[in-house]
Amino acid sequence: MTKGLCVLGSTGSIGRQCLSVVREARERFHVVALCAGQNLELLAQQARHFSPKLVVAGAPELVDPLREQLRQAGVSPSVQIAAGVSGQVEAATLPEVNTVVSASHGTTGLVATYKAIQAGKRIGLANKEVMVAAGELATRTAAEHGAEILPVDSEHCAIHQCLRSGRHGEVRRLILTASGGPFLKTSRQRLENITPAEALLHPTWRMGGRITIDSASMMNKGLEIIEARWLFGFPSEQITVLIHPDSIVHSMVEFRDGSVMAQMSVPDMRLPIQYALDYPDRLAMNSDSKGLDLVAIKKLRFAAPDARRFPCLELARAALEAGGPMPCALNAADEVAVEGFLAGRLRFSDIPRVIEGVMSETARLSSLNRLDDVLECDREARIRARELVAAL
Amino acid sequence: MTKGLCVLGSTGSIGRQCLSVVREARERFHVVALCAGQNLELLAQQARHFSPKLVVAGAPELVDPLREQLRQAGVSPSVQIAAGVSGQVEAATLPEVNTVVSASHGTTGLVATYKAIQAGKRIGLANKEVMVAAGELATRTAAEHGAEILPVDSEHCAIHQCLRSGRHGEVRRLILTASGGPFLKTSRQRLENITPAEALLHPTWRMGGRITIDSASMMNKGLEIIEARWLFGFPSEQITVLIHPDSIVHSMVEFRDGSVMAQMSVPDMRLPIQYALDYPDRLAMNSDSKGLDLVAIKKLRFAAPDARRFPCLELARAALEAGGPMPCALNAADEVAVEGFLAGRLRFSDIPRVIEGVMSETARLSSLNRLDDVLECDREARIRARELVAAL
Repeated sequence: MTKGLCVLGSTGSIGRQCLSVVREARERFHVVALCAGQNLELLAQQARHFSPKLVVAGAPELVDPLREQLRQAGVSPSVQIAAGVSGQVEAATLPEVNTVVSASHGTTGLVATYKAIQAGKRIGLANKEVMVAAGELATRTAAEHGAEILPVDSEHCAIHQCLRSGRHGEVRRLILTASGGPFLKTSRQRLENITPAEALLHPTWRMGGRITIDSASMMNKGLEIIEARWLFGFPSEQITVLIHPDSIVHSMVEFRDGSVMAQMSVPDMRLPIQYALDYPDRLAMNSDSKGLDLVAIKKLRFAAPDARRFPCLELARAALEAGGPMPCALNAADEVAVEGFLAGRLRFSDIPRVIEGVMSETARLSSLNRLDDVLECDREARIRARELVAAL
Repeated sequence: MTKGLCVLGSTGSIGRQCLSVVREARERFHVVALCAGQNLELLAQQARHFSPKLVVAGAPELVDPLREQLRQAGVSPSVQIAAGVSGQVEAATLPEVNTVVSASHGTTGLVATYKAIQAGKRIGLANKEVMVAAGELATRTAAEHGAEILPVDSEHCAIHQCLRSGRHGEVRRLILTASGGPFLKTSRQRLENITPAEALLHPTWRMGGRITIDSASMMNKGLEIIEARWLFGFPSEQITVLIHPDSIVHSMVEFRDGSVMAQMSVPDMRLPIQYALDYPDRLAMNSDSKGLDLVAIKKLRFAAPDARRFPCLELARAALEAGGPMPCALNAADEVAVEGFLAGRLRFSDIPRVIEGVMSETARLSSLNRLDDVLECDREARIRARELVAAL
């Protein structure tokens, strides 16, 4: 029997690549539900191609335009249509759904992903925010409901693969590799005056706005430290970062016997997608993918990260170590600060200042025990961050 | 309960390092039997330190001198003494022995290792010859008697670790890494006139005579292809070789999804030794070992092997593909040719000529189905090889 999929964020970069994986493995998967935001034309095309049971638009006012797009695309009128968070939750918890690919941006999709975890679904998690803002809650809930969370990003997928070579108690440390972004060798002074256009040029991956800026500031890697903590259950001090500008080694695990397992591949998001969908099996590579050719690559380079030039890395670690609402506040503040930077209201070096300001005003309460606590903390942190952006 | 060990070749390089692992993990292992060749003084010291039940000298005429060494070392007179192949077989099949470390040179130890396999022991296999000369027989016998064979060399240990990240049928290829030896960049013409002294300078590992010359000629890697075939059950075309002069990545496995798992560490034979002894557990690193520091190493380099300059690599592959007695003949011919080279009777470039000559005269019979067939094939190939060395 093929596995039923729900894709949250089907028209985004990960969502589209996920569907391209499904297209090549129809004998393994079928699409039950597709959820998108505003790109109704692409959503309708996807619906025509994959014949889902349910299609969900980003907001209620998009239901009629979506119906029209579906009609124009020749989709069967029997397809169900829903919208917004309630539609996403419906899609993610349908009984026919085995696996939910959580690939929407930001905190969109947080609720539906959480409900899917409560429903015991397998989660293919591309949305970092779930683990950063609500990692403790999400992993506890997953354990209670037998939901497996498989990472859909190259670093954590690499770690997941490396961990198969030993036991949890035998791990000395996780080693997250980082390309270092476009400013790997940029001086601290020069970093003050980086423009959005400069920051948007990532050397390896083509991604959306925030993730590219997070990559330039290395906040991306900081968020991955937090994510790794919850995905794999290791404390901050066992999670290290290593600069690897070639983006071939996607991450590593060092065991207590001194053995370091590394996972490598050509950079291609379809690999972590299909790994998450089909684990513990491995699908054959997509027909148009090239294998890794280390002879052509010739060498792999490594260096230490520079915490002085990239303070976001240590801010994220501090948030993880503080625990409770702090990672959620960090994530919200970063999103707001990055928006401010992209809109020309902040300098690049102001991003960590905004985050630090929000963190210093975040009460170190106990854990965020309910989804509402997470959403409330997120909202408050955004308000404070906007105030700080306006003041700078 | 601690595991009982028998060490075949306890005074050699691997044997000594094995005992240093045991010294640091007394809560896991105890030594039941030690077998050596002629280094009776060291054997007696080891016996004093580890209090084995049985001590075995290389030949019957060494029993009395060994008894005297044991007395001088203050070893309890209750220790049992044996000698030669029959003593090794007795040691390797004692009921108290769980694991036999097969670390003697050449075909010495082949009989005892085979008998240990028949007795269902775990084998920590450092002796390449067992798998090269008798791989088909040894693996079939191991399957019949439930004996696990764990490799004690950095490459195959790396592959064993990498294979844990997927299923057998998901493997696209094994990638054995090779330092390339001291002549990685030496011209074909210059290779004709290499001296034994030049060939004995290995860039990374300090090893015995034959293995160092095999490393210089890349026959070592050819033998590892054959070994990998039997240890892991993949055909020749799924086993490739990659030059990696840094000797940090000890080998890799590429899976069908394009994921390449690599195992890295500082070069230290104690890692594969303790992995083989304690698998599926991983012991903590020896107290005086340093961890892998990729920041200090800076880069890892890769290149394609040059089959034209190193014909031994393809000779080994041809022997594997021919099957039957051919790998046994290749191994014996190589040992004789290397002896001839080290004694100044052959040029470096004559080594593959001798091997090719012996192979061309080896009848492509069916499999070597009994140990006696293996020993007979080995004997005959040595005779032919000596004739060819004398003729050159």
